Amino acid sequence: MALPIAYEARLAECGSKHMALYQALRDAIAGGLLPPGEKLPSTRALAAMYGLSRGSVNLAYEMLAAEGYVRTGVGQGTFAAGAAGTAARIPGGTAAAQPDLSAWGRRLMEIGGSDESDETDESDEGYVPATSLPGAEMEEAPLSFVPRNIGERWFPWAEWRSAVASVWPGSKGNREPPSAPAAGSLELRRAIAGRLRRERGILCDAGHVVLTGGSMQAIALLSQLLLEKGRTAVAEDPGYTGIRMAAQAAGAAVAAGAVDDGGIVPRDWDADVLFVTPTRQYPTGAVLAYERRLALLEWASRRGAWIVEDDYDSDFRWGGRPIEPLKSLDREDRVVYVGTFSRSLRTDIRIGFAVVPSALRDAFVAAKRLYEPHPTGLTEQRALAVWMAQGGYDRHMRRMRRIYGRLQGTLRRLMEEKLGEWFRVVPSDAGLHLYAVWRKNEVEYERLRQACRSFGVEWKDAGLYRLDPRSSPPSGIFGFAHLDEEQIGEGVARIRRAADSLGL
Amino acid sequence: MALPIAYEARLAECGSKHMALYQALRDAIAGGLLPPGEKLPSTRALAAMYGLSRGSVNLAYEMLAAEGYVRTGVGQGTFAAGAAGTAARIPGGTAAAQPDLSAWGRRLMEIGGSDESDETDESDEGYVPATSLPGAEMEEAPLSFVPRNIGERWFPWAEWRSAVASVWPGSKGNREPPSAPAAGSLELRRAIAGRLRRERGILCDAGHVVLTGGSMQAIALLSQLLLEKGRTAVAEDPGYTGIRMAAQAAGAAVAAGAVDDGGIVPRDWDADVLFVTPTRQYPTGAVLAYERRLALLEWASRRGAWIVEDDYDSDFRWGGRPIEPLKSLDREDRVVYVGTFSRSLRTDIRIGFAVVPSALRDAFVAAKRLYEPHPTGLTEQRALAVWMAQGGYDRHMRRMRRIYGRLQGTLRRLMEEKLGEWFRVVPSDAGLHLYAVWRKNEVEYERLRQACRSFGVEWKDAGLYRLDPRSSPPSGIFGFAHLDEEQIGEGVARIRRAADSLGL
Repeated sequence: MALPIAYEARLAECGSKHMALYQALRDAIAGGLLPPGEKLPSTRALAAMYGLSRGSVNLAYEMLAAEGYVRTGVGQGTFAAGAAGTAARIPGGTAAAQPDLSAWGRRLMEIGGSDESDETDESDEGYVPATSLPGAEMEEAPLSFVPRNIGERWFPWAEWRSAVASVWPGSKGNREPPSAPAAGSLELRRAIAGRLRRERGILCDAGHVVLTGGSMQAIALLSQLLLEKGRTAVAEDPGYTGIRMAAQAAGAAVAAGAVDDGGIVPRDWDADVLFVTPTRQYPTGAVLAYERRLALLEWASRRGAWIVEDDYDSDFRWGGRPIEPLKSLDREDRVVYVGTFSRSLRTDIRIGFAVVPSALRDAFVAAKRLYEPHPTGLTEQRALAVWMAQGGYDRHMRRMRRIYGRLQGTLRRLMEEKLGEWFRVVPSDAGLHLYAVWRKNEVEYERLRQACRSFGVEWKDAGLYRLDPRSSPPSGIFGFAHLDEEQIGEGVARIRRAADSLGL
Repeated sequence: MALPIAYEARLAECGSKHMALYQALRDAIAGGLLPPGEKLPSTRALAAMYGLSRGSVNLAYEMLAAEGYVRTGVGQGTFAAGAAGTAARIPGGTAAAQPDLSAWGRRLMEIGGSDESDETDESDEGYVPATSLPGAEMEEAPLSFVPRNIGERWFPWAEWRSAVASVWPGSKGNREPPSAPAAGSLELRRAIAGRLRRERGILCDAGHVVLTGGSMQAIALLSQLLLEKGRTAVAEDPGYTGIRMAAQAAGAAVAAGAVDDGGIVPRDWDADVLFVTPTRQYPTGAVLAYERRLALLEWASRRGAWIVEDDYDSDFRWGGRPIEPLKSLDREDRVVYVGTFSRSLRTDIRIGFAVVPSALRDAFVAAKRLYEPHPTGLTEQRALAVWMAQGGYDRHMRRMRRIYGRLQGTLRRLMEEKLGEWFRVVPSDAGLHLYAVWRKNEVEYERLRQACRSFGVEWKDAGLYRLDPRSSPPSGIFGFAHLDEEQIGEGVARIRRAADSLGL
């Protein structure tokens, strides 16, 4: 309908309508905005569009044709000519304006927001992108334990499709209004509150549950609400990089919360917010002991601090006793419980949620609303609520627990059998990866990683999750939820061959 | 799988396993976590879960049964008893922790983030919620010109469904990876860049286009990157409330940019960022004159300022000449062009985008990634790209332009014929609402709004879009994209009857 030409600009300069049209079309063709072969409007249409006489338009077209900018086929219309492949000139380069970023923007860039190659970011799990090994390509088809595309292989598309179709406003029998509050689908929030009560002992209702685009949105918004320059956040070390980034972007200092085999070690931190993964520490998989849970709550109460409990991975348990979330022990309503469906569904279905204390709830919803007055991904939220109500979600989860449980057992057994000399697998009752600590020195670890490249296998180095890279021995994350048993066996065998080849 | 009981807590207190189990179950039943009728696990399952002997579990169950907390059906299992309707105790109330919000959080609450009733927020268009008239309910079935649910009535569900189904990773022939970069679907970004070039004269490629959850997310992220305490944003007055909120949340001062029938009036503002709706001023509908566009760009260049061009409503034009966006005239790459598909598709499909200058692009993507390492709503982004490639989107747009054009003509004609004595409809060539200025005094305007309640009709008062409520006469926003011709006629007739009844 519109024509991408700078008619007004030219008219202001030259004052003549047919000259302005001629110049504007010429510029657009020369500059690549109207590429060779593009059909131009008829003289009648162009005349109507710009309030010119058809004679003026004809004149402009004749001038353009004379200079070779357009060509005319009898009875076919007028087409842009010009050298094929004329590149469009995109502003930028040295003359372009450079931004004076806000302190927030500068912090964001300092913490490494820009050093990823965006187009190739196939990051897993909502966590930081996989660190691929540097250098040339693998010689064999690579077998990667880097967690990614969780759930893709087994996702029940037919069921999900029918759940999605049933919530489309055009569907028969669907009575949901086309819009939803900023907190997200009420039906899904009700369903989540019910599940948390039944499965996790968390008492909340739909009003406390706010849906977010993955759990990271919740973590970032909570950081903005509770942290700023002069305040301090405690983050687990090692721990999820996104939490540190969110706290630092908000201007806060980040204190390292040391982690051992029992999870984070409570201390009397001088801090305002604690981010913690008690159910399954990320990435070590440690379960936070009950006494430590109480100690954290006691600390928060004494300090007037807030705790953000990131329960990113509790849906998949392979044994042991159920753990009470911090939130279920929270008597002062100062724990925010954050969860996600990205692991139980698929990485690309971005439904996270936060159970927000009453005193924080309005502020949290206001923060969410500032960015999204209408929730993004509403159709998927509603589809999930329907799928849960139909029992499909529970059926899927039972099936995935069986499948993942078997894969986890296989990987653990093979790593202990074949790689036990080099790696100590940290025991864990839950989750979709194993965490393994290197038994030898760092130089040998790096030599093995290099060698594994030639043998076509890789894992995710856990080094980037540490605040102080040298605070503990090298370790690796071995995801299994995207593999089958044969691939797991082949991957472990390749690591073994690589280790043997080095005589480690 | 898990049982929502505080076993660990009780065990720590009393030291006896069967007593801990008894007390934890009793608490859960009394507190409503295990509601009446809920089936409890078998003794075998419970024993395995907590590492107890079956005898200990039996003992605990017997104690609970003796006190009436559980009832046992022979061969059926054990069920929670207790008074029906036992309410779960949710933490909160006076003992609960109160947050000490960050300065950002406090600003957010000050600018009115909390005074909306979330559950009833059926706000339109991504803008502020409709202000409903206070008081009792309307006597007739209300007919509302408040814009909402745009596109719902005519949306081609069958086509959209097939586009969505074709991009599901489970679909045959689909080769897209399950994840996408933080900037969103590359296919859709390419398609948008192509459309902007052809239809709006904006030269950009997919790398400059970043998809957002509606246009508001782009505006909020840009505010955080470019504004802070000590900086100033210019916002149109009247103008979109969300822009002011985003600038104020970032800590910036907001200067009012006066608007007349020619759009924003350029001045030599002492400011860092200008937010402007040049194609169709929100809410007046004024088109920014070409000379003013140049003056804004010249101002930005001289001041080293940035311009955010919010082109929220340019897809629907009813005549007049195509307008060149500021971005197409931007030689220094200091204009960010923000657009949305929420009007051309539906309110609940939240796909917005920003064309970001090269110097800002990394920071903008990093900001988006902080909240959403994986883009939310990826399926809909990909479906839109497919629908565009198939020509379905263009077909839909042609149809909607015809339909909306007819509705717009009808509303404009009827308002001029029937309500011309009271309202002056501001001429506009585009958009999905009419803006009408009240011709009489404010008291009479309020009397008419009150009377209209009894006659079952309402419009959206434009007062809340003003920085200074008394800077100009009362005015109203009359949306038509959710109505049919009959409803438009009936609505105008009701306003007329209300005005006549008052003898205005």
